[in-house]
Amino acid sequence: MTAFPPLLAELFDIRSPSTAMDAALAHAIDSKTKPPGSLGALERVAHRIGRIQQSTMPELTRAAMLVFAGDHGIVAEGVSPYPQAVTAQMVLNFLRGGAAINVFCRANGIEMEVINAGVAWDFPPHASLVDIPVARGTRNFLEAPAMTREQLEAALTAGAARVVTHASRGTRMIGFGEMGIGNTSSAACLMQRLTGLPLSVCVGRGTGVDDAGLARKTAILERALAAHPSGGGSPAGGDAPHAPDALDTLATFGGFEIAMMTGAYLAAAKLGLVIVVDGFISTAALLVASRVSPAVLDYCVFAHASGEAGHRAMLDSLGAEPILQLGLRLGEGTGAALAMPLIQAAAAFLREMATFEGAGVSDRGAAGA
Amino acid sequence: MTAFPPLLAELFDIRSPSTAMDAALAHAIDSKTKPPGSLGALERVAHRIGRIQQSTMPELTRAAMLVFAGDHGIVAEGVSPYPQAVTAQMVLNFLRGGAAINVFCRANGIEMEVINAGVAWDFPPHASLVDIPVARGTRNFLEAPAMTREQLEAALTAGAARVVTHASRGTRMIGFGEMGIGNTSSAACLMQRLTGLPLSVCVGRGTGVDDAGLARKTAILERALAAHPSGGGSPAGGDAPHAPDALDTLATFGGFEIAMMTGAYLAAAKLGLVIVVDGFISTAALLVASRVSPAVLDYCVFAHASGEAGHRAMLDSLGAEPILQLGLRLGEGTGAALAMPLIQAAAAFLREMATFEGAGVSDRGAAGA
Repeated sequence: MTAFPPLLAELFDIRSPSTAMDAALAHAIDSKTKPPGSLGALERVAHRIGRIQQSTMPELTRAAMLVFAGDHGIVAEGVSPYPQAVTAQMVLNFLRGGAAINVFCRANGIEMEVINAGVAWDFPPHASLVDIPVARGTRNFLEAPAMTREQLEAALTAGAARVVTHASRGTRMIGFGEMGIGNTSSAACLMQRLTGLPLSVCVGRGTGVDDAGLARKTAILERALAAHPSGGGSPAGGDAPHAPDALDTLATFGGFEIAMMTGAYLAAAKLGLVIVVDGFISTAALLVASRVSPAVLDYCVFAHASGEAGHRAMLDSLGAEPILQLGLRLGEGTGAALAMPLIQAAAAFLREMATFEGAGVSDRGAAGA
Repeated sequence: MTAFPPLLAELFDIRSPSTAMDAALAHAIDSKTKPPGSLGALERVAHRIGRIQQSTMPELTRAAMLVFAGDHGIVAEGVSPYPQAVTAQMVLNFLRGGAAINVFCRANGIEMEVINAGVAWDFPPHASLVDIPVARGTRNFLEAPAMTREQLEAALTAGAARVVTHASRGTRMIGFGEMGIGNTSSAACLMQRLTGLPLSVCVGRGTGVDDAGLARKTAILERALAAHPSGGGSPAGGDAPHAPDALDTLATFGGFEIAMMTGAYLAAAKLGLVIVVDGFISTAALLVASRVSPAVLDYCVFAHASGEAGHRAMLDSLGAEPILQLGLRLGEGTGAALAMPLIQAAAAFLREMATFEGAGVSDRGAAGA
């Protein structure tokens, strides 16, 4: 691909947080009134948050969940058991507060925003809808690249802009969710092309296709991948610059909601937010972002391993250690919303727990010997 | 053992919740705007909560965490690397709000109560301390039963009474935590005697004994078990009445904090609360309670599989499926406090999510196909 506009190009240059505080963080964690290591995975999360914020007193104020929705031309091939109209219907459900992601955001004090990234539907004006569609759904990527270069840039930029807005309000922790009938097909192709794993590892049942549906979906995606042999993406470990290839892959197989999420990940890392990564689709968008700028991963906490078949392999390819294993396969950002209280708890123990010295507790260990 | 006073005997007769609502609950869960089963483990938890409350609109108001502390005579044998004084020091840390359980309860809106069940220390009066010690620590169970019959009854009754108090305030979800240097030794002996599993499966590193310490701890507990061949407990599957044996085992090897927790579990089930089960020690107390009255298990949600060696085997022996696997091994109720937001989320989706019909969403499924 040719050069990107300066604003976007800047997003592609993300630096890892400094490790200069690592020793101080390890000491702070170990001096708390608990046996060393006894908070398990939360200690690892606390260390990561402390490093992102360069502080032994991290704070995750104004947690936000951005839910991007888009439609997919590939649905015309029958990859999903559900009609495309469900994408728009679910957006309306989000706006009325009746979906799982609404419930979990309300329960956990997370600010939720719904973004029309490119649904094949005209929504009436609604105070809670950020209505910025790139188009009324992507093209069918069996026939042509899903989106044009201009559409890709528009989506990346729009996703980044939403994050900038939230960061300016004081958001320190952010998650990205999605809704889009057909988007496990899109994510499976992105995963296959960017990881080089066999397609059979990348394709799953999505909302719940049966065995015959799964075989059909796999055959269609096989043809789609063959139709775009140069559709971007050097497999993991290639030493050529990754950014243009990964974004070309995104334009070829992606959805507008996925592309906006990719831009959102990059902006969130650039701004030093703690990013909570949801399930299969959200992780596919991160996979693209990580090929553009690998340091984005240093700002991520992985919420969960989902029940969608390819998710665990995708997490492994990113070296990710998810917090939850609940067998979720809903998307919308639900896994991220459910993990946020645990991530808040990790920051809170680092910020608020007493030290052995401060509390006058003997030796270096305590509870439940 | 001889008969128990009527108040206690009543606790030993717990009925399972009715399954009459099961079909209605399954229908309510499947009619929500999500693909069937896509909320994974949370659907199982929601069903259980709905059955306990006999409602498709369950509510878990006023979540509470009761932390019981007690000292253990067996500590004189050197089973822990930490001095007994740490139990009292940690109670003071609880009262000042500086321990992990304080932080997690604050973060998750859980009411926390600290109970002196039998610490070897005189605490000054404190508004947040329920100071009802049975004695200043148990006897060394290598030499004699840890507690007398009168002490056992006092502890069971006191634990039950605390739950009655909380339930009368409107608490619908409750967890039990503990603090007591030496109490993994006590719990390991209870587990061995009540499950019949090899002692090596039941003994772990507690706060962190090294290999030599673990060998020493195991040898001491081996001798203790041999010293009380009739110290209660028929192995799992025995068809004699379990109650007297399990409670005799509890008197022989237990701690006052464990005995109070046992009474608390029974009372919470009797009152129809949702019980959130924490780690190794808390589960050992539940193991005793479940041998007294197996139906107590139907009121439990298992928070986590801890890092303490025997916990997974103990959970398996109870047929438990824990929600979290975080490698925690702190006790205090921390795993239960961390799981409570997930359990609240399970109740909330059942109570608050829209149905396909109500939301005008097509077919039976939706998100992320």
